[in-house]
Formats: sequence, C-alpha cells, structure tokens
Amino acid sequence: MHEFKWTVRVYHEDTDGGGIVYYANYLKFMERARTEYLRELGFEQTDLLEQHRCLIVVKHVEVDYIRPAVFNDQLLVTCELTSVQRASFCVRQQVIRVDKPPEQHNNEESGSCLPDVLLVEGHVRLATLAADTMAASRIPQPLLNVIRSPD
Amino acid sequence: MHEFKWTVRVYHEDTDGGGIVYYANYLKFMERARTEYLRELGFEQTDLLEQHRCLIVVKHVEVDYIRPAVFNDQLLVTCELTSVQRASFCVRQQVIRVDKPPEQHNNEESGSCLPDVLLVEGHVRLATLAADTMAASRIPQPLLNVIRSPD
Amino acid sequence: MHEFKWTVRVYHEDTDGGGIVYYANYLKFMERARTEYLRELGFEQTDLLEQHRCLIVVKHVEVDYIRPAVFNDQLLVTCELTSVQRASFCVRQQVIRVDKPPEQHNNEESGSCLPDVLLVEGHVRLATLAADTMAASRIPQPLLNVIRSPD
Amino acid sequence: MHEFKWTVRVYHEDTDGGGIVYYANYLKFMERARTEYLRELGFEQTDLLEQHRCLIVVKHVEVDYIRPAVFNDQLLVTCELTSVQRASFCVRQQVIRVDKPPEQHNNEESGSCLPDVLLVEGHVRLATLAADTMAASRIPQPLLNVIRSPD
Repeated sequence: MHEFKWTVRVYHEDTDGGGIVYYANYLKFMERARTEYLRELGFEQTDLLEQHRCLIVVKHVEVDYIRPAVFNDQLLVTCELTSVQRASFCVRQQVIRVDKPPEQHNNEESGSCLPDVLLVEGHVRLATLAADTMAASRIPQPLLNVIRSPD
Repeated sequence: MHEFKWTVRVYHEDTDGGGIVYYANYLKFMERARTEYLRELGFEQTDLLEQHRCLIVVKHVEVDYIRPAVFNDQLLVTCELTSVQRASFCVRQQVIRVDKPPEQHNNEESGSCLPDVLLVEGHVRLATLAADTMAASRIPQPLLNVIRSPD
Repeated sequence: MHEFKWTVRVYHEDTDGGGIVYYANYLKFMERARTEYLRELGFEQTDLLEQHRCLIVVKHVEVDYIRPAVFNDQLLVTCELTSVQRASFCVRQQVIRVDKPPEQHNNEESGSCLPDVLLVEGHVRLATLAADTMAASRIPQPLLNVIRSPD
Repeated sequence: MHEFKWTVRVYHEDTDGGGIVYYANYLKFMERARTEYLRELGFEQTDLLEQHRCLIVVKHVEVDYIRPAVFNDQLLVTCELTSVQRASFCVRQQVIRVDKPPEQHNNEESGSCLPDVLLVEGHVRLATLAADTMAASRIPQPLLNVIRSPD
C-alpha cells in the first residue's frame, strides 16, 4: 500500500525548554502530512466541506515517542492507510529523522552515510462528520473510492 | 484608569529550546488576559457574537521583550485600556514576573523580598467587525458604555 | 487512589478553524495538570532537575476524543496514577467540561443542573531520564515514596 | 537589497475558532522565514551557538494585521534586512497570500490572474547574546560580513 511522505523542518516554535520537540507538536506534524496526503489524492478539506458538508475529525490517537527530535532536524512524516470503515479510517504515521533534504533523499548513490532514524510512531483514527449536525457520516463516495484502492 | 491583572503559569508548552518562553507565546498570554478582562466587565465574546454579531480582532501589536520568562515562572499579565474609538480600542499590557501566587500578592505584610520584574510590554489595537461581512463595525453600545468609563 | 483536578479555560489560542479545540492542544492541558499534580505532591520539575539531574519525558500516549471542547469552555483536567515502575509511571487523565468554576464545583447543594461531560480521556506513560546522559534512570526516591503511596 | 521569500502553508493548527490564522502564529511563520534566510546566507543557528556561543533573540516586534489568512492558504513570508548594529539587526517581513505554489510563482507568463495579497507586515529587531552570560554581544564577524553586504 502506498506510503506518503512529507518533509517537516523543526523550528524554535516546535521545541520546549528541554531542548527537544514538545510531545504535542508531533501531532501537528502528523496532521500536516495527513492534509498533504489527502491533497495528493485530490481532496482538499475545504472542498470536502463545501461540496460534501463533511468534516474530518480525530477520534483516537496512540503515539510512541522513541527518540526526540531537536531544533533544525529535517524530518519525514509518513502517512499510510491501514483500514477504512463506513464513517472512519485509520492511518499509521511515522516521524523519521533524515540527514539530507528530501530532494537528495532517494538518491542511492549520494555520499550519505547516516541512516534514517525512527523517532515517533503513531496510529490515528479519523471520522467523517456531517458538518451541520456533527453526527457521524459516511465517507463521501469520491474520497472512499480513492482511499479504498490507493494504489 | 482600572488595570486588570491575570495570572499565568509558564508550562513546558510555552518554552522553546533556548529555555525561555517563545516570543509568540506572550501574545497568547496577553489574549488570555484580554478575554478575562472583558469577562470581568461582563462581556463574553461568545455573547458579543451571538447578540451583536460582533467579532473582536487584533489589528496591530507592538511588543518589547525586556527579560525572558522561564519554565515554572508565575506571571501577572495586565490589561489597561488606553483609548477607545468608534470601531476599535487600544490596550497596554505588561507581563510581570511575580514570586508568589496572586492570592498573597497584594499582602503588603508578607515576607516577600523579591520585587516584581517587568518582562514584556505590549500595545495592542483591537477592532470590532461585523461577523457577517467582516467589515469594520461600531463597538456595540453596551461594551462601549463600559470601556468608555471603566471605573 | 487520589485523583487530582486542575481547571483549564479554553481560549482562542486553543481552538482551530473547525470551532473546536485542536486535537494536539488537549495534550497541553494534560501536561499542565501533570505539572500541577507533581507540584501538589511537593515536586517542582525544576528541583527534580537541579537536585536529582532527572528529567521527566513522555514515552507513550493514547487519547480518546469523545466530544469536542469549544471556546470559553471551563474544563477540569484530572490526573490519576495507575502504575509505577522503576523508571516510569503511568497516569490516566480525563478532560471534563464543567458548567461552573471549580470553586463551586464540589458544592452538592448548588443549583447547577447541567452534568459534567467527559470530553477526552488519555493514558500517558512517563519515563525518568538522567539529564546528563538522556538514559533511563530510576525515579528519584523522594518522588517514588510519594507516588508509591499517594493517599 | 535582497529580499528572501519562504513558503508557508496554513494548516488547522494555525487557525482559531474565528476561522482565521491566530494572530500569534504569524510570528511563527516570520521566524521560520528568518531561520531559512540565515540558512540561505550560510548560517545555521546551531553552528552560531556551538562555534560562537551566540544566541539570537527577539527584542521588539511591530505587526500590522491587514487581512486574515485562512486554512489551506499558500503564503509567502519575506525577510529583508533593514539595519544592522553592533549587537542587533532589524528585518522587515511580509506575509503575502499567493494563489499558486512558489515553483510557478515567478513565471510571468503563467495563466494566473489573481494578484498576490499582502496580509501581514512586521518589523522585528533581533539581538545577539552571549549564550553563557545572556548579555548583549557583538554579532559574530562571519555573520556580520554577510548581512552587512547581503548582495
């Protein structure tokens, strides 16, 4: 199954006094990657709202903090669908520290010698709601078509 | 003129990797104090919106960062009206480090020996907008009555 | 076992364009409550660092988002120890919407008719690290004594 | 004088319940652009700290909020040096809404018909501090050489 990757740079705003990325901020990184993943699939959340009156909300997260990210780290945040239900879907997301900007990242022949390091792993369940009632609502068909068969 | 004070504790979320409060976060502290100041005057922003279709937005800020706050600091954030126009008003706000919780803060006879320290000073201009058009809109009369003569 | 409660007010900074509290921000609320819980037990994290060279970091979170909080909501955030190991401990935390400020909250005879509503529930595992090596490190004995027998 | 530009996408984390970017968050966008501007000049803040024991802190900001950004907006954040002193320097920064990703942005012949829109303008004064004493400290010579003659 397709695994989407999105680059995130760590800025001062992301760190805390311990010198590491504040634990809540990885959830921001993960949502940026989810937003860009949907955009790559052709779905803008603004369009989902306007055309389908559909909101996507987070219902559950589980996050393992393995190693900390620090200021200036270049991160890759992945997003991979793991299951799709009628009115919700689940993704697995990893935050990985890379040592080169993503442009060179896939270049096997480059001189990079430092391996990627897994920092954070999360599982997120998202639900689709009817914007007008905030009640659970089927995933709109065009979105369902795409995430059902992402490859 | 009345000077409102609101207590803010510095948590990890507020600091950055330099070990000090991140510069944007003082603007959060200042808005908390403004929200509580309006509440003390009897105005809930939710009511302003529902009853008067009025939003309050920030149009201009000017902030001096004098000394940094750090994790666990106990701060007082002030809010003092400095001018009122038809569709906007200005406040002066200070962020002050205190060495005791605010309950004991006014107790002249307490054993405190450390003086309060001014950390940040800001001037903020706020405008009232019509929620439906986002156009500038007079300050609703009940709010105007109160902020025109705050004492 | 003792359940600690800490009051949090929802400000504009906490909400997102959906009109509800952004999902990562509940983790901020939960850490505020943990910080205050340790303070109530007599432990300042600054002292833990200076006297014991001990940092507390989050290793795992699991969060259920049940109902959303909105601007101006008055919340109670709980913190309850669920287990203590050599170099880590776990807490259960709830975010509850209340309809009165916490001063009156325990007054059974008050005229309140709206029940408290559970919005978010989380389980957090925290580890103690040696600040100088960032390696796992036993919970300092004075803290262990207190959290081992919190009542 | 050279004007640096950095692209920022607006995510849910940046907006507030009013449906617009929260006013403090533009300061985050502006710092991202300053960090990338220094990186483009060849200066990593981590190196400045390690090699020169030099920290860069914000001493003063003045921000005009002209029009709001909303979720999904594609923004350009500029950074332009306006003055350099012994131990501080000033930048002018604009937040501009663009209608296309920056790759196509300079292509005069593209079919874009919507003009860029200035949303926010800020002036920021930054000071260099000695990390060990937190006292004002001359701008390190290599950085000074570059920002004195940026073109």
